[in-house]
Amino acid sequence: MTLGRPAPPPLGKPLSDPAAGRGGPTVAAYGATSADSGLVPLKIGRREPGPHDVQISIAYCGLCHSDVHSTRGEWRPQRYPLVPGHEIVGRVTAIGADVTLFGPGDLVGVGCMVDSCRSCASCEEGLEQYCEEGSVGTYGAADRRHAGETTQGGYATSIVVDENFCLRMPANLDPAAAAPLLCAGITTYSPMRYFGVQPGDRVGVVGLGGLGHMAVKLAKAMGAGVTVFTASPEKAEAAMLLGADSVVVSGDAAAMAEAAESVDLVIDTVAASHDLVPYLRTLRRDGALIQLGVPGEDMPPIPVGVLMRRRIAYASSLIGGISETQELLDFCAEHEITADVELVAAPQLNQAFDRMVAGDVKYRFVLDIESLKENA
Amino acid sequence: MTLGRPAPPPLGKPLSDPAAGRGGPTVAAYGATSADSGLVPLKIGRREPGPHDVQISIAYCGLCHSDVHSTRGEWRPQRYPLVPGHEIVGRVTAIGADVTLFGPGDLVGVGCMVDSCRSCASCEEGLEQYCEEGSVGTYGAADRRHAGETTQGGYATSIVVDENFCLRMPANLDPAAAAPLLCAGITTYSPMRYFGVQPGDRVGVVGLGGLGHMAVKLAKAMGAGVTVFTASPEKAEAAMLLGADSVVVSGDAAAMAEAAESVDLVIDTVAASHDLVPYLRTLRRDGALIQLGVPGEDMPPIPVGVLMRRRIAYASSLIGGISETQELLDFCAEHEITADVELVAAPQLNQAFDRMVAGDVKYRFVLDIESLKENA
Repeated sequence: MTLGRPAPPPLGKPLSDPAAGRGGPTVAAYGATSADSGLVPLKIGRREPGPHDVQISIAYCGLCHSDVHSTRGEWRPQRYPLVPGHEIVGRVTAIGADVTLFGPGDLVGVGCMVDSCRSCASCEEGLEQYCEEGSVGTYGAADRRHAGETTQGGYATSIVVDENFCLRMPANLDPAAAAPLLCAGITTYSPMRYFGVQPGDRVGVVGLGGLGHMAVKLAKAMGAGVTVFTASPEKAEAAMLLGADSVVVSGDAAAMAEAAESVDLVIDTVAASHDLVPYLRTLRRDGALIQLGVPGEDMPPIPVGVLMRRRIAYASSLIGGISETQELLDFCAEHEITADVELVAAPQLNQAFDRMVAGDVKYRFVLDIESLKENA
Repeated sequence: MTLGRPAPPPLGKPLSDPAAGRGGPTVAAYGATSADSGLVPLKIGRREPGPHDVQISIAYCGLCHSDVHSTRGEWRPQRYPLVPGHEIVGRVTAIGADVTLFGPGDLVGVGCMVDSCRSCASCEEGLEQYCEEGSVGTYGAADRRHAGETTQGGYATSIVVDENFCLRMPANLDPAAAAPLLCAGITTYSPMRYFGVQPGDRVGVVGLGGLGHMAVKLAKAMGAGVTVFTASPEKAEAAMLLGADSVVVSGDAAAMAEAAESVDLVIDTVAASHDLVPYLRTLRRDGALIQLGVPGEDMPPIPVGVLMRRRIAYASSLIGGISETQELLDFCAEHEITADVELVAAPQLNQAFDRMVAGDVKYRFVLDIESLKENA
């Protein structure tokens, strides 16, 4: 087991001919054919919708850092070809005979999971992300109910997904800007709910990328005050524009000292190894630091005394369940929250990946699937 | 600030003549006169009881590992002479004019604190151990309301303490065996209450010393099942005698694998650096590992993924408040719980310290103060 990262789901079976029909249409996609291929145009087969399946014509798909790591094989060996993408928004084009939740023309979303065992305690509680059998990732995972083939994600013109893993997208939100709610949104929303953020609380956000900018917006909508901690003084204005109440430059020792014991929850989205002690010191008694960025290397150790002195917890959580993701989408509809996005066309994907690695995006790229059709 | 350990309270003023009266009697004690003196017979002055003070004739005082570290100056430089001891049980011999909670002859206890600011948010909530001004430790701390002199602990024939920091000792418990409840007991009880241990839960206990053996007894009394993790196979029988439902030898990889995801809360009492990942793996979803042992060195880093996969928290806590300590004592009276103790006489204290460092005690030494009077 690789420490420091979520346990990899089982690898799917290789597709002997990825473009061969899987009972359904062959569709245009972008994906990697090897760890160093970059993203290239591909054809992949999708299955014909089964009784509980929804067929979706994809309109937009958000670009997540994990897409970069996965397609480049940086977390573990992968089966190729691999089409990434788990922030998928589109319209239903066909439904299976037993589908009751959606109909043709509905605007729907698909996030990080497309299946789970549906019978373990976690699944029964609506926490499919913690499925004891392992949930089935939207891409790169063994699709257990479908011959163990490798799931293929949303950088494609269509996808077929069980209705129980589809979300209703709010009509009042820009669908491109709403796509990142399905991963960046729920990943920050879920721990804030779980750790009980209330109006009047103070939330600290470390790192102002895809996850961090969502955390700022969501915490504000929950009624919390928000302090953004950033290594980059030039991000201060951007943080305030997002709604932050204050910004602390983490390299400014005096400012960090002044922020001691000022927040109730820290959402740390930085995916590089960094010392957590300065942020733990900003927590009030009974506070918690939620680490959502997953560095490849170990983080520096956390001295027990820092936790002991004010009964502080260091914790993490994994996306959110399907029902909680729907709750988030409805919450965002009510508060008119979406991600700040930059649309990219398919031929720009490799450049966009490089810019993500360089942190050069405000704050989330979204692939316009129309561009993929043009290039198909 | 020394990382890895609770922030040291301010050093008290040196006593120009420790044996000089402080308005009250000069009493017999054992304490250190330097970091390498060991414990030697001393005379110290106690104050005359003020309006809110209780004067206590000490009968027993538990020996805590922190007594060893403190008298030897291993955590920070100390003011000497230093009389340790914060698991104090005795009878009230005199009270101040305004005392309402206790009367002469009452059996009372004094734990790790003898004062706090009493007005900050933590004090208002009865969490004096997290006092924003810093609580006043029973020994080695600056006694803010008493000219900043260094507090002197319970290895002494008497002590004078504000009534608000005294506890009612249950009549049905052996007072010698009840003394360790005041530190070892509350230190394990408080986090189990805070993290909501319920009947039917499973609690894992790492390390079977003074804290660990209390954790086993208290968790059982709360209705939880208990798994003891120990590095020493020979401790298995002892763990079962204490009430554990199962014992896992931590070096037995197969047994540790079998214990995966089997407990809801881990109470880790080991005060030496050790890898926490094997114990984090024994936690079920939403579990927490409470680190109560405070090693001098950093612990190995905790990979984020281990926490993320099952929404696990790594946390710590510091003793308990006065009202919660009284709650613990009443809980122990109801369930007839005391520590397993070995009585020692004052001349054996240095040997007892060495045996504590060697882990050669089942499970807590208690100083019989009668022996100190004989040697006075």
